[in-house]
Amino acid sequence: MRTNRQSVIVLFVILILGIASIASAADPLPSWNEGAVKDRIMKFVDDVTNEVSDACVEPEDRIAVFDNDGTLWVEQPIYPQAIFTLEKVKELLPKHPEWKTTQPYKGLMDGNMQEVGVFGAKGLAEMLIATYSGTTATDFAKAVKEWISKAKHPRFKRLYTELVYQPQLELMAYLRSKGFKIYIVSGGGREFMRAWTEPVYGVPAEQVVGSSVVAEFWMVDDKPVIVRLPKIDFISNKAGKPIGIYQQIGRRPIFAFGNSDGDMQMIQYTKAGNGNRLALFVHHTDAEREYAYDRKSHVGRLDKVLDMAQANDWIIVDMKKDWKQIFPTVE
Amino acid sequence: MRTNRQSVIVLFVILILGIASIASAADPLPSWNEGAVKDRIMKFVDDVTNEVSDACVEPEDRIAVFDNDGTLWVEQPIYPQAIFTLEKVKELLPKHPEWKTTQPYKGLMDGNMQEVGVFGAKGLAEMLIATYSGTTATDFAKAVKEWISKAKHPRFKRLYTELVYQPQLELMAYLRSKGFKIYIVSGGGREFMRAWTEPVYGVPAEQVVGSSVVAEFWMVDDKPVIVRLPKIDFISNKAGKPIGIYQQIGRRPIFAFGNSDGDMQMIQYTKAGNGNRLALFVHHTDAEREYAYDRKSHVGRLDKVLDMAQANDWIIVDMKKDWKQIFPTVE
Repeated sequence: MRTNRQSVIVLFVILILGIASIASAADPLPSWNEGAVKDRIMKFVDDVTNEVSDACVEPEDRIAVFDNDGTLWVEQPIYPQAIFTLEKVKELLPKHPEWKTTQPYKGLMDGNMQEVGVFGAKGLAEMLIATYSGTTATDFAKAVKEWISKAKHPRFKRLYTELVYQPQLELMAYLRSKGFKIYIVSGGGREFMRAWTEPVYGVPAEQVVGSSVVAEFWMVDDKPVIVRLPKIDFISNKAGKPIGIYQQIGRRPIFAFGNSDGDMQMIQYTKAGNGNRLALFVHHTDAEREYAYDRKSHVGRLDKVLDMAQANDWIIVDMKKDWKQIFPTVE
Repeated sequence: MRTNRQSVIVLFVILILGIASIASAADPLPSWNEGAVKDRIMKFVDDVTNEVSDACVEPEDRIAVFDNDGTLWVEQPIYPQAIFTLEKVKELLPKHPEWKTTQPYKGLMDGNMQEVGVFGAKGLAEMLIATYSGTTATDFAKAVKEWISKAKHPRFKRLYTELVYQPQLELMAYLRSKGFKIYIVSGGGREFMRAWTEPVYGVPAEQVVGSSVVAEFWMVDDKPVIVRLPKIDFISNKAGKPIGIYQQIGRRPIFAFGNSDGDMQMIQYTKAGNGNRLALFVHHTDAEREYAYDRKSHVGRLDKVLDMAQANDWIIVDMKKDWKQIFPTVE
């Protein structure tokens, strides 16, 4: 027979479990409209985290990778990282008169972002090098932090960190709550991103894969410093993305999210593993709330992927149709 | 006035807390002898994890780095990774007759480990390249796993994975229980280590920094593969260690443990940050239970560090005196 005390403990435990189940019953993705895409995401997460299912994936293998520009935040009219270099380009112009006639510098100064975009991840990395090489790791991070705390987007007049996609913030939080480890795998500069991804996305420095420059360790006045040299170390775009994943993470992801042809190899690598895997691309279809672009865009070109998606079970997320809200509500 | 039910709930909570505090009161480092070194470690961990103290470090910044060879497992008479390449060196000898007279191949085949050791991390990486280049990432990991499941140490007649240091296993578990994230930062091959660090040390692939070769992403028969090329990408030793930390982790550690002059820059970088930091070196002083070597050794040379330790507050761990047990008890 159960004593009074035992009954109370049982009641107490039931109460706790009850609160937990009510909390988990709330929609984890309120900014995603109901439909096939949302269903696929929720079903995938349920399947790989259902501990009594054969499809269950061990928590340490629940690796999710997200591209950054155009997948997690706005990349039009040009990658924010290009704008970050603009002030320094202008400042250094007297020393580099050739920039007046050289791309992508000329385009950047003229505000002709078509011209800047075609240089892609490599062009971005080279502008970073031209403007910030020889700085210490500490000074570079400081410069990025200062810029990103103030710089505003030309159309939306908001901080770039307020132009991240609300549905993706919810998706990352949802995956995290299910034991996933989330990595950013971007063609953008790794150290440029590391300066702000933790407060903005909840993704710590060590979970950011990106393009990098060669760095050296120096002792200066008996103090160790890390100096960024004017030499590209690695470009994390196209076939570079799975290589960045191999070198830095060392595990194949089970979930990948991109938005352009530059993410295709990362998605092929993700999908080629055994078992259940999910791959998605943002399709920018919403000129009113954000931008509409795909096959002919100067940034985030989505062309081959659109042709190959169906045969490969890559899920195309239609921004206009699938996302209820684009940006976070700012107080 | 408290009701009967409330009292029972309070008792229940006290019981749970009581069990938790008894568990944490047990010595987390039973294989470390009592003394100044153990006290320093425990005090450091208490200080940086005491949430009401100014010295408390946020959990995401509790990064601890450990060298591998000679710090976490046996590196005498030669690095295990060199032995891993030996079979392949013999197999490929007909194609490479020059190895009969070239170091470190000659020394490896002759069993003259003095000769092999002087080539260090770069020699190791070059032998890996010579024996395993052109293999896919998957095949290379498989070869390491097969070898490490069988290969035994010439003196101890035990698997190499049973020649890890018990005090360090306890220390890593202790740090982990206090919210630290543990990284291995080794001059050895990153993919060589990744094949076994998770089951042996509880350190997942993404927390292993090491020397690496250039890799490429290929589509072969419509299947994506990662191929290891015969070119060194990065040597993670000496000044390469803080660079590997910067590039892969992106945060400065607050705790570092090494055993040789090759770990000095990693420790200088760790100690140069603000606030409370701890740096230690294993000093191999126990010829009976393990090995005794330092200033003149062909592997894990500990020379400059011994001269500089006191002035820099680098803690020298005397294996003979500070470690109660060296290797794990094997059933």
